[in-house]
Amino acid sequence: MDFELNDEQRAFQEAARDYARAELAPHAAKWDAEGIFPVEAIRKSGELGFCGLYAAEDVGGLGLPRLDAALVFEEMAAVDPSTAAFITIHNMATWMIGKWATQPVREHWGPPLTAGEKLASYCLTEPGSGSDAASLKTRADRDGEHWVLNGSKAFISGAGATDVLVVMARTGTAGANGISAFVVPADAEGITYGRKEEKMGWNSQPTRGITFENVRVPLENLLGEEGDGFKIAMKGLDGGRINIATCSVGAAQGALDAARRYMAERRQFGRNLSEFQALQFKLADMQIQLTAARQMVRLAASKLDAGRREATTYCAMAKTFATDAGFRIVNEALQLHGGYGYIREYPIERLLRDVRVHQILEGTNEIMRVIVSRALLKNDEELR
Amino acid sequence: MDFELNDEQRAFQEAARDYARAELAPHAAKWDAEGIFPVEAIRKSGELGFCGLYAAEDVGGLGLPRLDAALVFEEMAAVDPSTAAFITIHNMATWMIGKWATQPVREHWGPPLTAGEKLASYCLTEPGSGSDAASLKTRADRDGEHWVLNGSKAFISGAGATDVLVVMARTGTAGANGISAFVVPADAEGITYGRKEEKMGWNSQPTRGITFENVRVPLENLLGEEGDGFKIAMKGLDGGRINIATCSVGAAQGALDAARRYMAERRQFGRNLSEFQALQFKLADMQIQLTAARQMVRLAASKLDAGRREATTYCAMAKTFATDAGFRIVNEALQLHGGYGYIREYPIERLLRDVRVHQILEGTNEIMRVIVSRALLKNDEELR
Amino acid sequence: MDFELNDEQRAFQEAARDYARAELAPHAAKWDAEGIFPVEAIRKSGELGFCGLYAAEDVGGLGLPRLDAALVFEEMAAVDPSTAAFITIHNMATWMIGKWATQPVREHWGPPLTAGEKLASYCLTEPGSGSDAASLKTRADRDGEHWVLNGSKAFISGAGATDVLVVMARTGTAGANGISAFVVPADAEGITYGRKEEKMGWNSQPTRGITFENVRVPLENLLGEEGDGFKIAMKGLDGGRINIATCSVGAAQGALDAARRYMAERRQFGRNLSEFQALQFKLADMQIQLTAARQMVRLAASKLDAGRREATTYCAMAKTFATDAGFRIVNEALQLHGGYGYIREYPIERLLRDVRVHQILEGTNEIMRVIVSRALLKNDEELR
Amino acid sequence: MDFELNDEQRAFQEAARDYARAELAPHAAKWDAEGIFPVEAIRKSGELGFCGLYAAEDVGGLGLPRLDAALVFEEMAAVDPSTAAFITIHNMATWMIGKWATQPVREHWGPPLTAGEKLASYCLTEPGSGSDAASLKTRADRDGEHWVLNGSKAFISGAGATDVLVVMARTGTAGANGISAFVVPADAEGITYGRKEEKMGWNSQPTRGITFENVRVPLENLLGEEGDGFKIAMKGLDGGRINIATCSVGAAQGALDAARRYMAERRQFGRNLSEFQALQFKLADMQIQLTAARQMVRLAASKLDAGRREATTYCAMAKTFATDAGFRIVNEALQLHGGYGYIREYPIERLLRDVRVHQILEGTNEIMRVIVSRALLKNDEELR
Repeated sequence: MDFELNDEQRAFQEAARDYARAELAPHAAKWDAEGIFPVEAIRKSGELGFCGLYAAEDVGGLGLPRLDAALVFEEMAAVDPSTAAFITIHNMATWMIGKWATQPVREHWGPPLTAGEKLASYCLTEPGSGSDAASLKTRADRDGEHWVLNGSKAFISGAGATDVLVVMARTGTAGANGISAFVVPADAEGITYGRKEEKMGWNSQPTRGITFENVRVPLENLLGEEGDGFKIAMKGLDGGRINIATCSVGAAQGALDAARRYMAERRQFGRNLSEFQALQFKLADMQIQLTAARQMVRLAASKLDAGRREATTYCAMAKTFATDAGFRIVNEALQLHGGYGYIREYPIERLLRDVRVHQILEGTNEIMRVIVSRALLKNDEELR
Repeated sequence: MDFELNDEQRAFQEAARDYARAELAPHAAKWDAEGIFPVEAIRKSGELGFCGLYAAEDVGGLGLPRLDAALVFEEMAAVDPSTAAFITIHNMATWMIGKWATQPVREHWGPPLTAGEKLASYCLTEPGSGSDAASLKTRADRDGEHWVLNGSKAFISGAGATDVLVVMARTGTAGANGISAFVVPADAEGITYGRKEEKMGWNSQPTRGITFENVRVPLENLLGEEGDGFKIAMKGLDGGRINIATCSVGAAQGALDAARRYMAERRQFGRNLSEFQALQFKLADMQIQLTAARQMVRLAASKLDAGRREATTYCAMAKTFATDAGFRIVNEALQLHGGYGYIREYPIERLLRDVRVHQILEGTNEIMRVIVSRALLKNDEELR
Repeated sequence: MDFELNDEQRAFQEAARDYARAELAPHAAKWDAEGIFPVEAIRKSGELGFCGLYAAEDVGGLGLPRLDAALVFEEMAAVDPSTAAFITIHNMATWMIGKWATQPVREHWGPPLTAGEKLASYCLTEPGSGSDAASLKTRADRDGEHWVLNGSKAFISGAGATDVLVVMARTGTAGANGISAFVVPADAEGITYGRKEEKMGWNSQPTRGITFENVRVPLENLLGEEGDGFKIAMKGLDGGRINIATCSVGAAQGALDAARRYMAERRQFGRNLSEFQALQFKLADMQIQLTAARQMVRLAASKLDAGRREATTYCAMAKTFATDAGFRIVNEALQLHGGYGYIREYPIERLLRDVRVHQILEGTNEIMRVIVSRALLKNDEELR
Repeated sequence: MDFELNDEQRAFQEAARDYARAELAPHAAKWDAEGIFPVEAIRKSGELGFCGLYAAEDVGGLGLPRLDAALVFEEMAAVDPSTAAFITIHNMATWMIGKWATQPVREHWGPPLTAGEKLASYCLTEPGSGSDAASLKTRADRDGEHWVLNGSKAFISGAGATDVLVVMARTGTAGANGISAFVVPADAEGITYGRKEEKMGWNSQPTRGITFENVRVPLENLLGEEGDGFKIAMKGLDGGRINIATCSVGAAQGALDAARRYMAERRQFGRNLSEFQALQFKLADMQIQLTAARQMVRLAASKLDAGRREATTYCAMAKTFATDAGFRIVNEALQLHGGYGYIREYPIERLLRDVRVHQILEGTNEIMRVIVSRALLKNDEELR
């Protein structure tokens, strides 16, 4: 066993930190307040390889393990969880295209996506199918040399501002096996975008519903085989859960750092806050939870990288643990800031609003518990 | 012992609920989004007596017990904690004027304040003195027939939009005994208001810093005796803590009702959410915590109404318990809404942003624990 | 509303405290260690009326409200939760006989039970029916002038050392409506007692299984009407849940008092433990939880006393809240004692072992949540 | 990074599991009930190398990393945390002798200790110095060729039944630097053992106070240099904390396995407990916490093995996290067993009583938080 980062990993970490501090930190509050989608800043992350971290190398990706990608995402999320999270979603969709698209589609979309010149959205959720993804109703029907899509998607990150959509649609009968995955240009005829959702956080990425009305894509735009869609979606989500978990870890680290700095400066009753034992104990608990959360993420990533059978369960565990812990830590950091934690001049309340959704998306933490208990009740030796 | 509301209390409760549904509920989301201070709606609550619920009757107040006032505030907070909380602060300041002001000042300010025609702010906190209120630095010096105020206040609710300020200032030496309380017209010469703080929530009430530069008020504007200021401020806060606690109870009730309704409608995996046992257990825990929080508030209010020595400790306990429980309940209600809990179309995320500050203000919940442990270590038999 | 005890209630409380300190406290550790059932001490409580606190007056009971009875039980449980809990069970069974038995049976058993000269057990649980009480299998079949009982019961408090049993048995078809309740002399022919269970705590009361083999009782030994058994059992449990909840409150108060005393004496790092802020905060949280738990018990008791429709739900809420909080408080008190909390020389570890079972019996806290959520999903206005 | 066990580690794990199931599991309940110190069973573990897992190889130890030792301890603790914990303490004391004793002492004590033929106790705590170890008062004064010890120790595991004591005593002035460590034969003249403490758990190991009255040991029995005692004690404790943490992980795994098996068999309301969603969610949370706890232990062990500067902080984090989580998991497993969890026929209540002390000893979890917050406030980059 080995729990230490190697030099290359530290170098990626540092590059990501430099990028985050230079390109995200100074603007994150403004992007949040004004709902700006920072396409330029994302593109710059692409120049560093961060838009295709684990995408295939032959389409311009870095082909890194998930564990290394998580290190990068964590650093971005420490200052801007919303933008960082969008970049992780883009990475996920880009990886899916690099892995399952036909060669022409890979060649067409892969290079600009990994470079960050084009951006991608992932379209699974529907208005009536949140946690119950397999019940989705959007249809894709074959018509000669095309697939024709009809239906609607909800809560799509980046929708209306991205260039390509990875869309899950039903090509067969009810249930998980009747679903296929497609690459759909975002400006295809028949696509309409709903109004931008007003959200609690994640304001630097637009969220919209999408309606497909007789949207035609060539047959080659199918990902994998017909009927593979749910499997592909779930594979994507395993990684997506690690990504969102690492975004919570990053935000928690950012919040803990801020709290520590604040406590070292703020005086009350003639002492620095950092001298009050009850507050020190809070800090200790935050650090302990944070360390555990980070380990859970790295453990799950290593399972996924190794292609282990039990990876899905570990991804679910990491997602639940890290997003729950992340919220608690950021929330405690806000409390330690007192009134200053509640105003937008300080970053804490934004971090709290941003991480709150991590417990909900990519499968709610309730669904994660369903996944874990199911594995456990099968007496899965691999959970020991 | 008697734990049931009487008919009069139920009538007040109902009147408050009707008011809240008619005047607050339809607009709360807009006021939050646009930072509108709803002066008209507050005035309407004054017509019902809600602006002077426990203020003296001879200045137009209803002279009700705190317990009855809490019932009213709870109903308002169920739909709009931000506006409800401002009304509680106005009630607190109005009560202070009714109780401690000189007769001319009582007669001048009392009637329009209890009627809601004029609004009041409470000015205790300073940039450097949050929890450590007794260290405040704003000075009031006597100059002939006037007091002259110099210094600055921070995080003042309503500042810039209210008509009168209750200001704590130092008239003597360091510490709690050197503080006095004053009634200061909001438009007095020498007062300047800072820019409106951008906050996580509580957006229907403006929050600003205030600077006093040689602000002169007549001697009669002193509340109580010189040196009584801290004692007056703390008496105000005992009630203020009950008020803020009841606002958390109200918001929690509103959120729980919303979650229950949502669960009865939303279908996943072929069943209503309300049929999933793990979610039912969450609801049960929310209800249990809510019931306990409400009891803690009513218990503390009854102690304060009876003028019992141990009232301060019970107010601190109620404030901590109810605001912590309130946040957890609203947060769980958000989770039960899934993605819909995160968007502004539903009221839950607003309730969460609003109640978050209740754990911080009127004395942070950390300060509350200091108060409780101090009483306990004195072996206070009254805590049994 | 009125939250204060009246003089009579304070007098009962004091009498119970005196009794507990004189008759229970000096021996509780020994009874626990050696598994002694303190029949004499229980009889002495009977002399004070504590064996029939809410039983009918015409059979020697005091006919007190549940709320008053809870005050008495709380004081006993502060020093010996195990013996206190047995006395509550005896009270419950005695109340049932006083309320539902035929006149001859009331007259025969009532006076010695309320006096504490005879003791009673309550027999509901069976090996295969814990939480699912309505599935019980013990049968009672009518044979001429007798009922004939066959079957077995499990986890019966006092079994083998008590004089009379209140037994739930099936006289009809499956389900709750086929159950009737009987008064059965503990030495009736055909009754055999299993071996004494070795338990984690509650060691001052013997727990055994009971087997009924053609046990005959006269027809007059039926409680209420045929088929009323489940309803009677549940009515008994409403009160039983308040009782067990109040035993947790008492134990928590005893543990908190002990922790406070210990912290005032124990020195570490040159200071008393009571001077460490992080430990003070723990104390504060314990006190806040304890106060809330006590209020929940009193609220539920008052609902039951008033015969309110929603009483069952409030009893379930009180039971869950108070037994969960009680365990946490005692457990934290143990931690505050350090190593001394873990040894039997101090009472804390015994209190912890004793209260642990309160979360399980009289309906597990999981079943309580089922009850609460069911009421809530019916949109029970009375829960507001 | 690599999170998987290698083949050798799996082999050790399996050997330990086989040993635990054969030699500990069948007797653990009896040892607990009767307070039997299982010297023979411990000796058998010595035959497998488990009495000197990380002791130096030249005195018969296996010289394994802490991480590997933790795997072994975890398996033992899954069935008998009390005996497992004693074996870890013996390992710690044995390692100290192997590392810091003079060659003659190493040669004399090392081989029989690593073989399990002789057993060792670790003597740091005193009646007045629990968490504040540096304030210890036992003195060792030089007298010619001997050190002469006077004073008393408290809560010593194994005392009265072990063969050799590692004793911390004051040779210099007040504070940590005035302490030295000694190897003292358990039967040296002047040693008297107090009565066996009656404890909540950990009953298979005797705990006693020890009094030293002019106990003479040769100069060569000093460990390390004069004044090194506190440093040596703390080094021992770093590893001791990992050991106790891994014992909590083991017990939690044992309890979770038991709960899962019980739930698969126990029927209520016509279904297996394992089919109730609320209980499934509990299982999931237990598994998630357990996985995180195990990772924290392995991470800390790897830090200690690598001799990293930040190891102490990670050991403190692992100790707190794993012992807190362990208690919660075992406690929840007890709840899932219902009444059967509370009786001694099932192992759960014993596991709970045993793990409870882990949160207290080897430094209370409160002291651990002091250690962590201190490191954090120094802005330790290594905690990231």
